[in-house]
Amino acid sequence: MFYHDNELQYEVEVEEPDPYYAKMMQQAIGGIEGEMRVALQYMFQAFGTPKSMGKYRDLLMETATEELGHIEMIATAITKNLQGAPEDVKEEVADGNPLIRTMMQGGQPRQALSAGMHGLATDANGVPFNGSYVVASGNLAADMYANIAAEATGRQLACRLYEMTDDEGMKDMWAYLIARDTMHQNQWHAALEELGDTLPVPASFPQEKENQNVNYQFMSTFRDQREDPEERWTQDTSIDGKGEFSFGYQPGGGSGLVEEAIEEMHNHASGSGGDKSIDDQ
Amino acid sequence: MFYHDNELQYEVEVEEPDPYYAKMMQQAIGGIEGEMRVALQYMFQAFGTPKSMGKYRDLLMETATEELGHIEMIATAITKNLQGAPEDVKEEVADGNPLIRTMMQGGQPRQALSAGMHGLATDANGVPFNGSYVVASGNLAADMYANIAAEATGRQLACRLYEMTDDEGMKDMWAYLIARDTMHQNQWHAALEELGDTLPVPASFPQEKENQNVNYQFMSTFRDQREDPEERWTQDTSIDGKGEFSFGYQPGGGSGLVEEAIEEMHNHASGSGGDKSIDDQ
Amino acid sequence: MFYHDNELQYEVEVEEPDPYYAKMMQQAIGGIEGEMRVALQYMFQAFGTPKSMGKYRDLLMETATEELGHIEMIATAITKNLQGAPEDVKEEVADGNPLIRTMMQGGQPRQALSAGMHGLATDANGVPFNGSYVVASGNLAADMYANIAAEATGRQLACRLYEMTDDEGMKDMWAYLIARDTMHQNQWHAALEELGDTLPVPASFPQEKENQNVNYQFMSTFRDQREDPEERWTQDTSIDGKGEFSFGYQPGGGSGLVEEAIEEMHNHASGSGGDKSIDDQ
Amino acid sequence: MFYHDNELQYEVEVEEPDPYYAKMMQQAIGGIEGEMRVALQYMFQAFGTPKSMGKYRDLLMETATEELGHIEMIATAITKNLQGAPEDVKEEVADGNPLIRTMMQGGQPRQALSAGMHGLATDANGVPFNGSYVVASGNLAADMYANIAAEATGRQLACRLYEMTDDEGMKDMWAYLIARDTMHQNQWHAALEELGDTLPVPASFPQEKENQNVNYQFMSTFRDQREDPEERWTQDTSIDGKGEFSFGYQPGGGSGLVEEAIEEMHNHASGSGGDKSIDDQ
Amino acid sequence: MFYHDNELQYEVEVEEPDPYYAKMMQQAIGGIEGEMRVALQYMFQAFGTPKSMGKYRDLLMETATEELGHIEMIATAITKNLQGAPEDVKEEVADGNPLIRTMMQGGQPRQALSAGMHGLATDANGVPFNGSYVVASGNLAADMYANIAAEATGRQLACRLYEMTDDEGMKDMWAYLIARDTMHQNQWHAALEELGDTLPVPASFPQEKENQNVNYQFMSTFRDQREDPEERWTQDTSIDGKGEFSFGYQPGGGSGLVEEAIEEMHNHASGSGGDKSIDDQ
Amino acid sequence: MFYHDNELQYEVEVEEPDPYYAKMMQQAIGGIEGEMRVALQYMFQAFGTPKSMGKYRDLLMETATEELGHIEMIATAITKNLQGAPEDVKEEVADGNPLIRTMMQGGQPRQALSAGMHGLATDANGVPFNGSYVVASGNLAADMYANIAAEATGRQLACRLYEMTDDEGMKDMWAYLIARDTMHQNQWHAALEELGDTLPVPASFPQEKENQNVNYQFMSTFRDQREDPEERWTQDTSIDGKGEFSFGYQPGGGSGLVEEAIEEMHNHASGSGGDKSIDDQ
Repeated sequence: MFYHDNELQYEVEVEEPDPYYAKMMQQAIGGIEGEMRVALQYMFQAFGTPKSMGKYRDLLMETATEELGHIEMIATAITKNLQGAPEDVKEEVADGNPLIRTMMQGGQPRQALSAGMHGLATDANGVPFNGSYVVASGNLAADMYANIAAEATGRQLACRLYEMTDDEGMKDMWAYLIARDTMHQNQWHAALEELGDTLPVPASFPQEKENQNVNYQFMSTFRDQREDPEERWTQDTSIDGKGEFSFGYQPGGGSGLVEEAIEEMHNHASGSGGDKSIDDQ
Repeated sequence: MFYHDNELQYEVEVEEPDPYYAKMMQQAIGGIEGEMRVALQYMFQAFGTPKSMGKYRDLLMETATEELGHIEMIATAITKNLQGAPEDVKEEVADGNPLIRTMMQGGQPRQALSAGMHGLATDANGVPFNGSYVVASGNLAADMYANIAAEATGRQLACRLYEMTDDEGMKDMWAYLIARDTMHQNQWHAALEELGDTLPVPASFPQEKENQNVNYQFMSTFRDQREDPEERWTQDTSIDGKGEFSFGYQPGGGSGLVEEAIEEMHNHASGSGGDKSIDDQ
Repeated sequence: MFYHDNELQYEVEVEEPDPYYAKMMQQAIGGIEGEMRVALQYMFQAFGTPKSMGKYRDLLMETATEELGHIEMIATAITKNLQGAPEDVKEEVADGNPLIRTMMQGGQPRQALSAGMHGLATDANGVPFNGSYVVASGNLAADMYANIAAEATGRQLACRLYEMTDDEGMKDMWAYLIARDTMHQNQWHAALEELGDTLPVPASFPQEKENQNVNYQFMSTFRDQREDPEERWTQDTSIDGKGEFSFGYQPGGGSGLVEEAIEEMHNHASGSGGDKSIDDQ
Repeated sequence: MFYHDNELQYEVEVEEPDPYYAKMMQQAIGGIEGEMRVALQYMFQAFGTPKSMGKYRDLLMETATEELGHIEMIATAITKNLQGAPEDVKEEVADGNPLIRTMMQGGQPRQALSAGMHGLATDANGVPFNGSYVVASGNLAADMYANIAAEATGRQLACRLYEMTDDEGMKDMWAYLIARDTMHQNQWHAALEELGDTLPVPASFPQEKENQNVNYQFMSTFRDQREDPEERWTQDTSIDGKGEFSFGYQPGGGSGLVEEAIEEMHNHASGSGGDKSIDDQ
Repeated sequence: MFYHDNELQYEVEVEEPDPYYAKMMQQAIGGIEGEMRVALQYMFQAFGTPKSMGKYRDLLMETATEELGHIEMIATAITKNLQGAPEDVKEEVADGNPLIRTMMQGGQPRQALSAGMHGLATDANGVPFNGSYVVASGNLAADMYANIAAEATGRQLACRLYEMTDDEGMKDMWAYLIARDTMHQNQWHAALEELGDTLPVPASFPQEKENQNVNYQFMSTFRDQREDPEERWTQDTSIDGKGEFSFGYQPGGGSGLVEEAIEEMHNHASGSGGDKSIDDQ
Repeated sequence: MFYHDNELQYEVEVEEPDPYYAKMMQQAIGGIEGEMRVALQYMFQAFGTPKSMGKYRDLLMETATEELGHIEMIATAITKNLQGAPEDVKEEVADGNPLIRTMMQGGQPRQALSAGMHGLATDANGVPFNGSYVVASGNLAADMYANIAAEATGRQLACRLYEMTDDEGMKDMWAYLIARDTMHQNQWHAALEELGDTLPVPASFPQEKENQNVNYQFMSTFRDQREDPEERWTQDTSIDGKGEFSFGYQPGGGSGLVEEAIEEMHNHASGSGGDKSIDDQ
């Protein structure tokens, strides 16, 4: 179960509020690369980890809980960036509250309309957070790769947001969050190392049941059959150490056409006399 | 640009049609672990790969094109599984076409209602494929991790579908597709190896700008501060080789509370006399 | 503006309640082929029709309003089908309310859980109605084609639902709704006839600005260049009467590769020494 | 910021696993009436509460954190219900793992396919949790009504799930969660009482700016103008005490038709000679 | 069933077209606080109201029908705001139609691209209206609270939109719509009053089945157990009058960990030799 | 199965990069009128075409494959438009990379944040592509009408995008794509012609089962019964040649009210003494 206190996990200061930046930061809350996704993903993975793998459940819950605090930090940053209009905007606006005009011209409409100048459970475009972002497969190796991918795109997003501001407070917050993403990437890699021999995921499926002709073959789909480009992925031992890379082409498996006969579907295009086209075949 | 011919990439045979199985297979077309996702993901990644990284663009397009053929294969398998009702169902149904009654009781409604007993661009629950599944970050290392994760959960799905049928034709199709996922996992790992030193992703962000106190620290969020569990992720050199794992707690950053003053938002809960609660503070 | 009275547009009787059928009928309320879509689509098209085209605005509003009544009819039919469990199901269930057990095994979960045995604003899978189904392009010819397509798939759905029941009341309701779809298909075709020469939509774009090499050419994408199949779409005068069908292949337009240089995006996959792969090119 | 420990908030026991019930319970995790929604809703409301309203921020965060623990409880309940197949199902299944066959016929497909027999961040139909469920308006009175509504439909859902099982463990869990919903309904009502005079929400908008003819008038839209039904909502003092209920009809505001002239939109349906229909007007 | 005529419900005039404002108003059509939601919500609630509660069905249908007319009004307002570009924008644009350039820089792209300068069935961000917004629970008390919440956030939105314009026509339209929201809030409260003793919703569930320890206890989740803050929600009689508020902490329910054994899910992370991590426990 | 080569289908040149235009073009990739939709729609229609209708399967696959190349073209155009900031923007921006500031103020946020200045699988608002756009009904006539509608709105979109740029390269690309849409509209019409007598769709449903009173009657829903307007859709032979248009009104079908009795749903609004309102009836 969960607890909270009244402090932020790390300080959040904004020197020059910037409503455009408040829009962009939404991606880090409710976007596919954002904090809601990782918080919930690690949580659901933990919920599905069996008793015998308890140390991984711990690992996941520790970090899930940390990520909840990141949602709070970024939501706070958004509110602070919506406290006023940037200087350059103020000059351009003739009448009314310049912040409102700014929001209308290039801000995130729903931060004003739906939230009264606060953050939302959406991405930068206002697309709501979607539960399908939450990957929890029941297999820890698959999950660790999903987590590494989430942290890689998450740190990518954080670095881009770092570059989009000159505000010292904001840069300091991102320096903290980028550092955490560095750690999280590393810790999921460490967990994979501990899990042992996990490739190909899932490792429990007996590979002798795989089609042995194509399980380590790079398959070219180039229109004119090209020669083996002799890349790392077409020759030598495979990365999982269980096969030898080779080069080949799509095997081809005959026509997939079937005839259908379920009248109740009313799939016939033309009337009772039969499809004209059938007669043409 | 793209071309096609009239063969399947690999044969698709069904001996005993099973409409429940046709429902489950939808996940492998339009689900987050499915073929539409990887086909489009590799395609969009290729579209974003610059000229100087041409061999990776090739790699991505070769496999994107292969995955398009997998959509075709599974769609064909679904149609073939919807050609009739399973024997055990037929007996239970008193009147009408037993396939239709089966579809109504436990099949995928829209395979009948919207597609006339064919596959859909949805997952097993009929949730439509969603473009947010397509990860193409502009950074090849982040993309490769996203691809490894996609193939890990994709092979996981394929193995589960393999276990859910006794049909020899279907098992043979999955043996092929599982083998391809083995190769794809390996080839994306190989590409990462070729890309060199990519951790932490993105590698181009200068790590000296990160918060140095927490970039290799495992952060415990346990309610009562626990001791270092001395796991792989709390001690020794980090996996990226650029730091030393340590163990610590959430730093805490003071209160994030702010006062707001934008009247036009009408955030005040009570009327002109001021919020009763404000007086109580 | 709108008005209502307390009658259904047409009677809705159910003799043998069938909760599976109640699930399937959801598609006709909130599915892409359903009544919410057409009601709103015709309404938004009417809202966008200019004063000079008033008779089309009338036409659209008349039918939009009719479709609102169809939502009411089908919602009533769903409630009536959820009033009891089918006989064959009752026998199989050992304990508890057989309707509830039926809903749990093969019904629409949210008709029970969220609506207390009533209809929902979703399709048969519980996927919520989505505003993107509503096509209102601002161009009446495009809209009429969208309407014909909506009524074609809508009547298709209605015919399939007609086949899925033996209940006389339900069949009578669908006989009414199928008849209305017949009329609606015809009336949108009639409107197109009235609009005059609308092809290719939009007709106001000067065709001399089109690429003249490919605007009436059937473009084969077959891997090995095939010969002209001499079909209706590869020869003779085009359907719009403004060109001559021909047969050809994809022209090809050179490589689309570009080099990128925006450092702030952190797209470089590997660290400061440059991408290893770049050196390999 | 947040913390956690390794206990559930309340015990979760399952005596007879029931995969159909595991499907239904998804609604209580990721459905619009579920725990993800309230946890996040209260959290985002807290993030948007200003310093001067600190006691409400506390109230919201206390309960947001409690709800996180409910997600964990229900996810655990789902896993425990997926541990085996019900007795009556086992007998009907000839071959293979009866649980898998059960899942295929009437279970939640993705609990097996995507999560390996665990819970998902979706509703009972597999529709992913959606961030648009999270209402946090920036106005505490509006938020409290949203919370009361969420807890009313949430308790409704919990009561329905209570009725759908005979398992003593499950009934005990729901007795706990239903009790919490009782408390939560009461506490949000208490907060409204404390906030004082909040009607009509938002109370800060000067009511003299409202249209005074219709702000306390019940507006009948019945086709044939009916007489005042003399209900509580058509006469006597309004509930907010600021007006007198009356009875009337839609005022009517003339035609809304406009003429358009932006050629670049290509809204003209027919070609250069002008729309045929325009001539007909 | 429904009827219509050719008048707006109330006049809609725009003096100075403003495409940014046209974007913001979309929220009032297809947003979660918008008119499509309430029109459909009241309609579906009416469809689910039983014969014995006929006066509530009437109440709901009267207002559902009224809300349909509001969609029409706002769609008309959007079209009128898209008739031209604001003066300050015109000066900044060097070439081409200034309206188009305005739309590209800060307008709602799809109002131009998809609708030819008209309204859409989406919110201000272009996120399509979603059927999950429609709450119709089958229980009138739950529904009335959902309606009060919808009208509270709806009036909040309308007040914010009122503040965002200086156009007299627009202000007059919003003064009308805000007034209607005042009435609607009041009428749903009046219905609740008529329904009698509805707390806690649903009132039909026997409260003696609730867990009696926690059904009126405020549960603190603060990390360090705090003292009773002695607020309205921690002491004295509960708002429903059926209990006494108290203060306490999360009870704790032991570990929720389970062991799993369904091999066909392939949840084991590492290969045949067993998970390395299991040996480490 | 599919193949590819390394050329674009047609050249894509951009002379003056325009990030606003890059935003608008997203609609042509992932919007409902875009290339992802038609590529996948034609593909799924082909997958569902039976052997006896092989020439239509060919037709569909040829064009599905062509459309894949259009996604590639437009994605390339987006990248090229994101290579720099427009001149007029550069001057307004004081500090930092003007492109980034432009993206923040009026560009597509996720083209920067999620894709590193590349295209996305979304529409212009960042709403992800949705599998529900893909219409493949199993009936070729219904599908052809869906395709004509898709190409009509698609060409409409392309014409609007043509008007929104002065860049010669971009205009040349659109001249090509508009031409292709001309052809595609024509070819689907040609296919309909070949299919023969397809109206009303589906033609296989015996029309004598339709309600004969209303299947060719224009149904007015005007509040005050109007007279027959004597339009093309109210008189003379119907377009399908199978009926005679007439004019009439909604028939009316009595009340749809039902009584409900499933206690387990807890639909009663008030407590044990029965609903107060029931006594009032």
